Amino acid sequence: MKAVVFDGAGSVRVTDVPKPTILDSKDALVRITHSSICGSDLNILRGKIVLEENAVMGHEGVGIVEEVGPAVTRTRVGDKVVIPYSIQCGECENCRKGLVVFCENGGMLGHGKQWGDFGGTQAEYLRIPFADANLHQVPESATEEQVLFVSDILCTGYQACEYGGIEPGDFVTVFGAGPVGLCAVATAKLFGPRRIVSVDLADYRLVTAERLGADRVLNPERLNVVEEIKKLTNGKGTDVAIEAVGSVETFNWSFESVRSGGRISIVGVFPFEKVGISLRDMLRRNLQMRAGRANLIHMERIISLIEGGKLDLTPLITHRMSLSDAAKAYEIFAGRSENVLKIILAP
Amino acid sequence: MKAVVFDGAGSVRVTDVPKPTILDSKDALVRITHSSICGSDLNILRGKIVLEENAVMGHEGVGIVEEVGPAVTRTRVGDKVVIPYSIQCGECENCRKGLVVFCENGGMLGHGKQWGDFGGTQAEYLRIPFADANLHQVPESATEEQVLFVSDILCTGYQACEYGGIEPGDFVTVFGAGPVGLCAVATAKLFGPRRIVSVDLADYRLVTAERLGADRVLNPERLNVVEEIKKLTNGKGTDVAIEAVGSVETFNWSFESVRSGGRISIVGVFPFEKVGISLRDMLRRNLQMRAGRANLIHMERIISLIEGGKLDLTPLITHRMSLSDAAKAYEIFAGRSENVLKIILAP
Amino acid sequence: MKAVVFDGAGSVRVTDVPKPTILDSKDALVRITHSSICGSDLNILRGKIVLEENAVMGHEGVGIVEEVGPAVTRTRVGDKVVIPYSIQCGECENCRKGLVVFCENGGMLGHGKQWGDFGGTQAEYLRIPFADANLHQVPESATEEQVLFVSDILCTGYQACEYGGIEPGDFVTVFGAGPVGLCAVATAKLFGPRRIVSVDLADYRLVTAERLGADRVLNPERLNVVEEIKKLTNGKGTDVAIEAVGSVETFNWSFESVRSGGRISIVGVFPFEKVGISLRDMLRRNLQMRAGRANLIHMERIISLIEGGKLDLTPLITHRMSLSDAAKAYEIFAGRSENVLKIILAP
Amino acid sequence: MKAVVFDGAGSVRVTDVPKPTILDSKDALVRITHSSICGSDLNILRGKIVLEENAVMGHEGVGIVEEVGPAVTRTRVGDKVVIPYSIQCGECENCRKGLVVFCENGGMLGHGKQWGDFGGTQAEYLRIPFADANLHQVPESATEEQVLFVSDILCTGYQACEYGGIEPGDFVTVFGAGPVGLCAVATAKLFGPRRIVSVDLADYRLVTAERLGADRVLNPERLNVVEEIKKLTNGKGTDVAIEAVGSVETFNWSFESVRSGGRISIVGVFPFEKVGISLRDMLRRNLQMRAGRANLIHMERIISLIEGGKLDLTPLITHRMSLSDAAKAYEIFAGRSENVLKIILAP
Repeated sequence: MKAVVFDGAGSVRVTDVPKPTILDSKDALVRITHSSICGSDLNILRGKIVLEENAVMGHEGVGIVEEVGPAVTRTRVGDKVVIPYSIQCGECENCRKGLVVFCENGGMLGHGKQWGDFGGTQAEYLRIPFADANLHQVPESATEEQVLFVSDILCTGYQACEYGGIEPGDFVTVFGAGPVGLCAVATAKLFGPRRIVSVDLADYRLVTAERLGADRVLNPERLNVVEEIKKLTNGKGTDVAIEAVGSVETFNWSFESVRSGGRISIVGVFPFEKVGISLRDMLRRNLQMRAGRANLIHMERIISLIEGGKLDLTPLITHRMSLSDAAKAYEIFAGRSENVLKIILAP
Repeated sequence: MKAVVFDGAGSVRVTDVPKPTILDSKDALVRITHSSICGSDLNILRGKIVLEENAVMGHEGVGIVEEVGPAVTRTRVGDKVVIPYSIQCGECENCRKGLVVFCENGGMLGHGKQWGDFGGTQAEYLRIPFADANLHQVPESATEEQVLFVSDILCTGYQACEYGGIEPGDFVTVFGAGPVGLCAVATAKLFGPRRIVSVDLADYRLVTAERLGADRVLNPERLNVVEEIKKLTNGKGTDVAIEAVGSVETFNWSFESVRSGGRISIVGVFPFEKVGISLRDMLRRNLQMRAGRANLIHMERIISLIEGGKLDLTPLITHRMSLSDAAKAYEIFAGRSENVLKIILAP
Repeated sequence: MKAVVFDGAGSVRVTDVPKPTILDSKDALVRITHSSICGSDLNILRGKIVLEENAVMGHEGVGIVEEVGPAVTRTRVGDKVVIPYSIQCGECENCRKGLVVFCENGGMLGHGKQWGDFGGTQAEYLRIPFADANLHQVPESATEEQVLFVSDILCTGYQACEYGGIEPGDFVTVFGAGPVGLCAVATAKLFGPRRIVSVDLADYRLVTAERLGADRVLNPERLNVVEEIKKLTNGKGTDVAIEAVGSVETFNWSFESVRSGGRISIVGVFPFEKVGISLRDMLRRNLQMRAGRANLIHMERIISLIEGGKLDLTPLITHRMSLSDAAKAYEIFAGRSENVLKIILAP
Repeated sequence: MKAVVFDGAGSVRVTDVPKPTILDSKDALVRITHSSICGSDLNILRGKIVLEENAVMGHEGVGIVEEVGPAVTRTRVGDKVVIPYSIQCGECENCRKGLVVFCENGGMLGHGKQWGDFGGTQAEYLRIPFADANLHQVPESATEEQVLFVSDILCTGYQACEYGGIEPGDFVTVFGAGPVGLCAVATAKLFGPRRIVSVDLADYRLVTAERLGADRVLNPERLNVVEEIKKLTNGKGTDVAIEAVGSVETFNWSFESVRSGGRISIVGVFPFEKVGISLRDMLRRNLQMRAGRANLIHMERIISLIEGGKLDLTPLITHRMSLSDAAKAYEIFAGRSENVLKIILAP
């Protein structure tokens, strides 16, 4: 079958790899119909995540179940399904505690032998272990494009809001209007804030932020973000700051703009370097910081909100391309050219 | 001054009563600019609440501070303020626990000597004890009509949602589309449900429910409500049922339509008779029931949401009348004529 | 194999039944070493739960895994395990929501065809479907008798406390000092109450309540319970009332003795008749009521507390008998003779 | 009157200062019977907190109300009261939100003009503004020494546990067994952990930790703390780490020893320097960090637990001295000599 693989240097190529098969009684084989490229795919290309040559890329995907092992009961052949970015067994101690991204038998898709060697979604087929614990049916009334981002960034955005502990009436600031930040903006509305502010350097992204629900957008190139947030909150600061970039600068803005007793939620992926934080100040201001990869336990809830017409992230889709054109797609995505947000790849 | 008083029989009249004055160092004197008539005012007329003759009516109101006692620091003369339906001292054990409607030194406005004898809002002036603990400033960008319902029904509707524990993705059913039920519909949106269903016998109320955010309206005259809710939820039932009527029938619908593990929130005022409830069934289905009068601790939060443009209950205002026409206003309100929802009275 | 079966009339007998075998790839076969008799077993004998003749009884048990199906990975032959009273598949929508006692593919042990026909624990062997989702390993440092009650009543008692929302400093009253009520007393300590009061008519049970952590015991034969609780709380009432009996009288005491803004937790099994409750009063006093069968998601947490020496319910064990003497054991248990609390049956 | 004042250099002296008087209608004048020396008093001596010469020291205290202003209603002359370390008005926006240590009209006792200039408790008398919002009655059945630490360190320890989100069954590690760390150990028991581990370099402090409830004590001089915690938790790490020291080393131990998905609670006061933290690792491990000064809203709850016999911190009292001997007392406390934990000063 065709698949997008890492070339070992700094880019990807489309090549033929063996089609996966059912190996375990709990496996399902899924024919991928839609996948997309994620910011963390770029981290692989840039060497921030070390991947072996020829590993299949991709951890976001939707497809159709083609075959299931004998112990699979909940998932049926022909089901249209969303695939989570991280595989869980559903049975180990961490899974039972709800810490499913720390599954002792699972790991991340599209990360080669780094995290379990489970294959990737940027391919024609994918074997999904523990199928019943991982695959979620796409509701009849929803399209593949509507649910595709549930694989990862929509769960991440939702979790950013949950980790921020947003309560009705809160003032919420989301730093970064890339795909994850935009998902945070869109899901923040589910928690009843009085105002959502989106911060980014790229104006085309801020336009989408407004379309997805931001009440106000700020471009740090044109004003002092921290001062502006203080001004908008009578000098108090934002109740919740969501860091969706992963840079020292945006973290510092989060830290400085949050009010006493406020909460910082971190979903941006930071480089290896430590960040200097004043714990003295954190104590004096009674701050809370919570960070994490999307834990996936809210997939069903989020799908039901899409089905109910309460969440629509299709405005993120700026490009639809063929899997064969993956190299070109990666180039656009990495270069942030053509006002790109998310690129859908279809075999 | 002019005031609406209970005539001791079954109606009200407008008469002259002594203008209140500052009695305690923590008092404020408020000149009322807007008040309204509430469903519980009708309970007084109908004898469900026993009130002495000539007691001033009304517990919803907005006004301007005209005078303050020497120990009042937070409230200033000239402030435009919302008045809570129930007075709190802010200092007793219950107040400190957040149970402010159980204040040991407070009580309800407009209920004569029943609950503290604090006067009522359907008058030209009102003395507010413990002014700093009770009065909330109206933000500059909001009108009196926008914040008036914060006095009572908007806090009640918000609490109905809170007591229902609505989480993002929940299916929510509100029984009753009177003013309180409609406030519950409008505030339910703040909690991210996948669907809000409003149930009432009066179609004109259901029209307002849709305008305020109901995704679906059901009139029990035309269909079996419990069956319809089951159908809309694949047989599972509603996650949250809000009872905003106070009748055995609507309670039973709430109980029957809620899913296993679901929550029933009760803000409807029931008659004195006990209601037969199967505790066996409640156990078997892991249900939760929570009831209560609005506890008022969320007033500031709700005002900030109105200021932020996220809540607008002015569609409830169907009539604006003079305080002098209160008798006529009560007649319309009690008769549910003229498609009435809420009547604003202005001196 | 030997098993305790329902005789179709009002008692049990020990007889030979076919030994169960692995039927599904996710099954495990457990050799039962310890089981016990529960209050709900008596409901079967008394006809409150309709069971077919010759159904195997029992839903509390500990044993050793003798065989596993090919899809079982977490559970191993030779494991010493606790068996939950209710079987879950771990994969259906309810299981994934944590509502595991509403599993669409599961049901209660020891209840014949009423709830899934899964066999019972009062036997030499038991087949456990979805073994990995149901069986919990007994830690090395704990005995079978220490963990046996995790099957049901210890989870029920824990849930009673959780549903009561006990917070540090709360005054907690547990109505009923039968096995479930005593488990509630013992687990209430985990939530930091300032006082635990246990109420029962049988003094020998109150003695055990004190041993397990009750600060005060009340026998309604000797005083007015509601008045006493009011006196102990300066007239305010108990913060949390746990109903662990299932009678109208104890429910009414719970309702009357709870403070304004308080919480009633119901784990007692009530008869079919409805109970008259004043919803008017419930609203006026801002009460919360929550009922439910133990939901089992806390089994691991409770086992870890036993292992850590923080919970010890072995004082409940008043009798240790042979499975062959089950008829006699049921007689003692039903008659509440010999100061019985729990009877352990061993093959 | 006599008072302990800062000498402007690095120590204190006892001198005569004017006796405070009622200045505002909401004031109370308290005759101090017991005060104590806190770790943050040493920060003043060491110049970490800049205080003007002759400022009265002390923010922990118990006393008797001698006089009240005309607007004080809840507090009565003759009341035996606990004084909070930080004054709140009870009426500003922060107070109403429960963020009472951020009171816009309040500030810390014993910190001169740094935070409000309210005087200190290490004196014969103290004026307490907003008396009704600040003073808490000592229950008849409790002694002054039992409630004294509610002023500050007991609230801080309780909050450390609350910020750590301890749930029944959790493994809890408290870094630091000074007075605050020991209060965290004692209050952790209220949350039902399966194990409490106390870490400190001073063995005499670890002895008290065991007496107050630690299941295990670790001295980093004798073993690798992080490795030991991993070993005690099967390699997983502690569920909750409480940092009660304020040093980079103990913070790093907290960070390294906490499990994936775990929580770090910070109540130690750090120096001005920033601490390097890997936000990348924090994200990868889904960690939560929460820091803060004790927010005082739990004072009544904690007093009720002391009254109920569930909390007893008098083992912290190692010295009882006269206010006149304050200089000597500070010397002992600063030098950690004589196995000191807390020193009570009485006029």
